[in-house]
Amino acid sequence: MATRIGKSTIVFTDKPAIIGYGSVVGKKEMEGPLSAEFDTHDLDSRFGEDSFEKAESRMQKIAVETALRKCLKSENDIDAIFAGDLLNQCIGSSFGLRAMGIPLVGIYGACSTMTLGLILAALCVDSGAAKCAAAVTSSHFCSAERQYRFPLEYGSVRPQSSQWTVTGSGASILSAGSGKPYIDKGVFGKIVDLGVKDANNMGAAMAPSAADTLINFFNDTGSSPDDYDRIFTGDLGRVGTDLLYILTEQNGFNIREKHDDCGLLIFDRNRQDVHAGGSGCGCSAAVFNSYVLHRFESGEYKNVLFMSTGALLSPTSTMQGESIPGITHLVNIRI
Amino acid sequence: MATRIGKSTIVFTDKPAIIGYGSVVGKKEMEGPLSAEFDTHDLDSRFGEDSFEKAESRMQKIAVETALRKCLKSENDIDAIFAGDLLNQCIGSSFGLRAMGIPLVGIYGACSTMTLGLILAALCVDSGAAKCAAAVTSSHFCSAERQYRFPLEYGSVRPQSSQWTVTGSGASILSAGSGKPYIDKGVFGKIVDLGVKDANNMGAAMAPSAADTLINFFNDTGSSPDDYDRIFTGDLGRVGTDLLYILTEQNGFNIREKHDDCGLLIFDRNRQDVHAGGSGCGCSAAVFNSYVLHRFESGEYKNVLFMSTGALLSPTSTMQGESIPGITHLVNIRI
Repeated sequence: MATRIGKSTIVFTDKPAIIGYGSVVGKKEMEGPLSAEFDTHDLDSRFGEDSFEKAESRMQKIAVETALRKCLKSENDIDAIFAGDLLNQCIGSSFGLRAMGIPLVGIYGACSTMTLGLILAALCVDSGAAKCAAAVTSSHFCSAERQYRFPLEYGSVRPQSSQWTVTGSGASILSAGSGKPYIDKGVFGKIVDLGVKDANNMGAAMAPSAADTLINFFNDTGSSPDDYDRIFTGDLGRVGTDLLYILTEQNGFNIREKHDDCGLLIFDRNRQDVHAGGSGCGCSAAVFNSYVLHRFESGEYKNVLFMSTGALLSPTSTMQGESIPGITHLVNIRI
Repeated sequence: MATRIGKSTIVFTDKPAIIGYGSVVGKKEMEGPLSAEFDTHDLDSRFGEDSFEKAESRMQKIAVETALRKCLKSENDIDAIFAGDLLNQCIGSSFGLRAMGIPLVGIYGACSTMTLGLILAALCVDSGAAKCAAAVTSSHFCSAERQYRFPLEYGSVRPQSSQWTVTGSGASILSAGSGKPYIDKGVFGKIVDLGVKDANNMGAAMAPSAADTLINFFNDTGSSPDDYDRIFTGDLGRVGTDLLYILTEQNGFNIREKHDDCGLLIFDRNRQDVHAGGSGCGCSAAVFNSYVLHRFESGEYKNVLFMSTGALLSPTSTMQGESIPGITHLVNIRI
């Protein structure tokens, strides 16, 4: 059963625990600082498939299978899987999970998808609607680039504020009460759109929504950054992270010492040509289901905020002159 | 709190009730047999906007505002809205709901979206995570046609098995225990893909998943078609409906006398040039939030099964030679 505190925060009362998790990434991610964290990778980023879209689907399947294996569960044990991605009509998820026979709840939150899936899976388990539920998402540099921007062969020049879509996927398996890290609270984010129209500056478009969700959560719970071991955002990158610091400080919260952005963790910006940092659904999904959860296992983390950040644009909306709505969902993970 | 029966069926214990609902459609739908049922329409299907995508967004906003008005609620009363559509990156929902300030859960289920949103909103209300939650979806013939198929100006010839995307939207507002029709049970569907590759025959691609979900529900609950006043599918059209009858009969269930397909109700196939019937997220959404719920209000219906049916393809997956995965979610509505 769940309850609500304040305006936005859901409190789960049955400790829906993350009992299994898996991560899979591509070549560039394996060359980055987190290479030792990931479960699986593929050196040509095609994962044995003949298209980038099929490679992305394959990654979701691998991530779910890895997570299931780690908690000794099978596909039949999962009552619902919450899955989505960046591809048109979310085909990364539909085709990746097609053969698994797990009841599928398709979700769309752009790069906020991992956290959105975690909240919904927690709700499902916490309410008794599922014994076990799963959340998965993915992104692939090559499928995203050619869908959102230009054909890869065109070799377009990218501005410094742009980010590099992570090739990766992450999956979590949730079950009630087990002593593992559990999802204590969740916040469904609201759309925040301050009018940013530059599709090469997603960090600036998403930062106001991240600030909105985080400040609402602090106010609802009466907590402050000091109460948490770490506060993660999904893929604000360098530009968005700096904006988030300014926006939270304007509201009396200094998160600088506590904050990490998955998009800044996954690549080394000095060494890897990723401009403002990593992005994509797979960015926060792969980092959460490796780096973050490993640190719960080792005892380093006991209380963490994890917020994936999404930019709800499409090439069509941009061509029609629209600005970029941002959305940020939040989970509070504890042990 | 929710419980589970059988393999797939969620039972809601707190009677999450549909306290408000709204529908909006375009010109062709107003020329069809259900014209007296809908709340709002626009005669040029542009709803005052300068693009079809923006018109679709506008329809979602109108549907939600209509539903809120009917139950004397405001945007501030809604703790979460479950919304999705057919457009790339679900921009119908993101831009339609952007200004409302309601926490947004983006969902993707192709034309199964209305039922998917109802299950999730029911779960949210039933678990205590929300006092009020909403579900909304939409489709627009012109935005769907140019995204999935050809530019409208091309005037391509359509085969007889093809369906006509409904221009419409529907929204439901849910709240706990009020004596109104409530969502008693829900089933998250599994992907069923029997290998149909004809993107002009969605009914055939979706029918096996509709049969799978319905048969699972009958088996889980020990019920039969006779126990229900009516059984609705979303948009199987003529071809898919006939296949559903065959598939259910092979499993010992005859639904012919009890079944209606929203895609066959909304248009008159003898008079309107829609080939196999209506389709699109907006088809089952507009019919449910008018025709179906009106008959609960009048006392004609007391126990209904409502199943929106989705085809999880994209133009990219079709071009890459993929078949069309189908998915069908189900709710059991009672009073």
